[in-house]
Amino acid sequence: MIDMRVRWPNGARVAVALTFDFDAETLWMARDPDNIRRPGILSQGRYGARVGVPKILETLRDAGVPATFFIPGWTVENHTDRCEMVLREGHEIGHHSYSHAWIDPAFPDQEVEEMERGLDSLKRVLGVTPKGYRSPAGETSDNLIRLLDKHGFLYDSSLLDDINPYRHAMPDGRPGPVELPWHWSLDDAPYALFSIKGPRPIFTNSHIREIFQAEFQEIHRWGGLYNLVMHPQVSGRPSRIALLREMIAWIREFPGVWFATCTEIAEAWATHHEAR
Amino acid sequence: MIDMRVRWPNGARVAVALTFDFDAETLWMARDPDNIRRPGILSQGRYGARVGVPKILETLRDAGVPATFFIPGWTVENHTDRCEMVLREGHEIGHHSYSHAWIDPAFPDQEVEEMERGLDSLKRVLGVTPKGYRSPAGETSDNLIRLLDKHGFLYDSSLLDDINPYRHAMPDGRPGPVELPWHWSLDDAPYALFSIKGPRPIFTNSHIREIFQAEFQEIHRWGGLYNLVMHPQVSGRPSRIALLREMIAWIREFPGVWFATCTEIAEAWATHHEAR
Amino acid sequence: MIDMRVRWPNGARVAVALTFDFDAETLWMARDPDNIRRPGILSQGRYGARVGVPKILETLRDAGVPATFFIPGWTVENHTDRCEMVLREGHEIGHHSYSHAWIDPAFPDQEVEEMERGLDSLKRVLGVTPKGYRSPAGETSDNLIRLLDKHGFLYDSSLLDDINPYRHAMPDGRPGPVELPWHWSLDDAPYALFSIKGPRPIFTNSHIREIFQAEFQEIHRWGGLYNLVMHPQVSGRPSRIALLREMIAWIREFPGVWFATCTEIAEAWATHHEAR
Amino acid sequence: MIDMRVRWPNGARVAVALTFDFDAETLWMARDPDNIRRPGILSQGRYGARVGVPKILETLRDAGVPATFFIPGWTVENHTDRCEMVLREGHEIGHHSYSHAWIDPAFPDQEVEEMERGLDSLKRVLGVTPKGYRSPAGETSDNLIRLLDKHGFLYDSSLLDDINPYRHAMPDGRPGPVELPWHWSLDDAPYALFSIKGPRPIFTNSHIREIFQAEFQEIHRWGGLYNLVMHPQVSGRPSRIALLREMIAWIREFPGVWFATCTEIAEAWATHHEAR
Repeated sequence: MIDMRVRWPNGARVAVALTFDFDAETLWMARDPDNIRRPGILSQGRYGARVGVPKILETLRDAGVPATFFIPGWTVENHTDRCEMVLREGHEIGHHSYSHAWIDPAFPDQEVEEMERGLDSLKRVLGVTPKGYRSPAGETSDNLIRLLDKHGFLYDSSLLDDINPYRHAMPDGRPGPVELPWHWSLDDAPYALFSIKGPRPIFTNSHIREIFQAEFQEIHRWGGLYNLVMHPQVSGRPSRIALLREMIAWIREFPGVWFATCTEIAEAWATHHEAR
Repeated sequence: MIDMRVRWPNGARVAVALTFDFDAETLWMARDPDNIRRPGILSQGRYGARVGVPKILETLRDAGVPATFFIPGWTVENHTDRCEMVLREGHEIGHHSYSHAWIDPAFPDQEVEEMERGLDSLKRVLGVTPKGYRSPAGETSDNLIRLLDKHGFLYDSSLLDDINPYRHAMPDGRPGPVELPWHWSLDDAPYALFSIKGPRPIFTNSHIREIFQAEFQEIHRWGGLYNLVMHPQVSGRPSRIALLREMIAWIREFPGVWFATCTEIAEAWATHHEAR
Repeated sequence: MIDMRVRWPNGARVAVALTFDFDAETLWMARDPDNIRRPGILSQGRYGARVGVPKILETLRDAGVPATFFIPGWTVENHTDRCEMVLREGHEIGHHSYSHAWIDPAFPDQEVEEMERGLDSLKRVLGVTPKGYRSPAGETSDNLIRLLDKHGFLYDSSLLDDINPYRHAMPDGRPGPVELPWHWSLDDAPYALFSIKGPRPIFTNSHIREIFQAEFQEIHRWGGLYNLVMHPQVSGRPSRIALLREMIAWIREFPGVWFATCTEIAEAWATHHEAR
Repeated sequence: MIDMRVRWPNGARVAVALTFDFDAETLWMARDPDNIRRPGILSQGRYGARVGVPKILETLRDAGVPATFFIPGWTVENHTDRCEMVLREGHEIGHHSYSHAWIDPAFPDQEVEEMERGLDSLKRVLGVTPKGYRSPAGETSDNLIRLLDKHGFLYDSSLLDDINPYRHAMPDGRPGPVELPWHWSLDDAPYALFSIKGPRPIFTNSHIREIFQAEFQEIHRWGGLYNLVMHPQVSGRPSRIALLREMIAWIREFPGVWFATCTEIAEAWATHHEAR
């Protein structure tokens, strides 16, 4: 078998990153600026702050596992208490743009602004200097990788081109940030985020669980990284909290599993695979 | 565990609101005014009046549970006999706009007209002064909450930002209506309302039942409000009538369940949580 | 229970109409006239003629049940041999427009042309004077019902507003054609007709079977009409032929089932419900 | 039963073509030229080259079965090492256009260019003269069939109008290439290729397996060709590699199964069905 194993700490076969994109209302405002006047639509995002985050934190605490929350600056400013709850629980906070604007490489100035305003909010409001970044909606640009490098980010988690971490190479040949790849099939939104203007089907826990588990089983067979992408407004619904609880318990029954923050994963990968 | 329990009457853990948005043809005319000339499309809505409402009423009567029907003024005027059947069965009727127009906050005059014409129809044709309101398609506006306050509504059921009821605060600090939140995952339309011009997949009863039940099980665990949103033209199909019958029987097997109208729920919440 | 029973011949509880909309390439040309230059897209429709119809006829013959095929004039002219196979097997052929054009009530002349060219093809090429009509894509118009009346049609099967047959009333009060209602949930296309430009999910036989069976079970409980709408290009795929075979065998195990053509159903309904 | 059996070598009932459309980034660039500036979107295609192809080749080698890879010229030039891996494993490589551009019969010059540039890349970079062709996205044209004939292709695999192979007739009556038909229901993309701008639901392995297996079972009953269409960026995901492994093992348990390349299948069909 092709050797895709990563040398994780303590001989683990799989590193599990539980990540939460805490977009709140920005998810909807970024899709359509007019949504700012629509409390019905925005209320879906507000649920993530109001109920989703506390319930997710409770679930993680009960299970005793760490997680990484990627948070836009707007959410930091408008749901500060929820972000502080995340920090108090000891989880990592990463950068997730300022307003969840989908990156358009044709407007590099906007990329710079989203990066810098987001950094400023995290620092000023929460005292956090993030080590990692995830771009909204899986859209990124070459320019953005340069921005991450310029600001000294340890890792990015925006691309879908591998299972395991790898190192970006900068145009001048220097090493850039570590990439922690993700994939739509390991994201809760394609299965359970509904919008009346662009409806996707709402799937059952059985459906989501089968895909999440089938991916895990094969990654466990190969060895590597299992990067689960969730949203408090989606995975914070009652039934999805049950799914999260069950998934953590199910994963735990496998030997050689390491639940870690993205920073821990990126550092472990760099130490074991690049120091040689 | 975060205490989300609500002190419902008789120590119930969960209040169950069976709600029916009796849109009939307005569902289709509001999406596209040209549909008024399309009897094929409109016939889907007419099914709700012709077969759906009588079959739903029969199912509720057999089970001995109350429900709340949110009805647009147009439906009141065009399917008066069906609305009178609802009243005779002792169910609550709430306001659901006049023509099911999706609220656009850019046109506050239209909101006023939809509110007032709907109120007038309910009063004039049915003798009903509604205590509750639900906006079409989950769209609402800040202005609308003010309209509800002005007309003395007890409750609104249009937002998706919580599981449990809460009290709206008006701009001047006075208490506004009680909110009874809902969510797309507990609505029949995302699973079974088909339109050839914007097709959504049609799901099985197993699929819908799993989601409805998983949400119920976790809400029962937390304590709170279970607000099920149905449409006679969807849930009135033969197979969905069977689903409704089965869901009611399934819910009943749980301890501490209180089936109630939305007015009863809003009043109980206010009495137990605000009187203190 | 509300009495929805129909007095079918021999005391049957349910009349089963197996109907096939044999659109062939017209399904695609009607959606986009440019498709006429796209053999890839059209080949999906051609499958219905080449493989679907012979396999469906074989399945019906093996089961010994009658069916009704609604066929556009274009298909009559371009797949004449397949239409003759349908006739030789003793099934009914109904009118299904000339080119599968979606009816737009704003263009009544087109409606007249589609009606008359379709009638002419059926008569001239196959020697058939159809007794029934189904409009393409569930779109119809008030004008079309008048056209059906003018041409002496016994029945229409285009509307979705009931389970059981009913009689249309013409504007002048005279009785119009009998309506045999259908519904998207009992149509194969929402589950298994894929188009890259407007993709719908492709569902499993288990999924389709559950919905088809749940509808049947409840209609059997109520008594009435079970009107199944299929397309040779969809239900003629190998796996769907297996589904059709299984559905017929499954339905047969119920007591009081009457498989019949649409004409037999419309006549039986009129005889037993209007002669009184 | 209608005799659809094909006389495959050694009396096999079913010929199984495992085909892989190795589009890589071209799948996304062809849908929207602006995607060339979007590394996030393109990274989905790059996954196919980076992880998908090696894992698929490993799976095929472990199972000892041959396959056919249809590869656009762009992919040949940009992922040459992966294409060479395919050749070293002894699989067939077919033509799949140059840039995965969807064929538009209104622009015949583009068709010629896509054909000739693709041929040139395959020949120049890999030393391959392809015997077969598959058009991108199921779009083809009459002109394209003439191009295939002109360039001496043995077979085409772009149309959906039959289960079994057949011979194209050229306008002048000469025999053209053999057609090896396919169908969307036997393609992995409708079930598991997600795009945020045109989202399709992501289905479980159980779902895909049921459809793939139900089609196989009935084709095995009839006799014929089972043409499975996969994409390394889809079927190369961990869970889908498991599905491929399981499908091959499951198919093998049937008697009379012949796994073959498309060239072997087209030649066997011509030998046994046309030599008579």
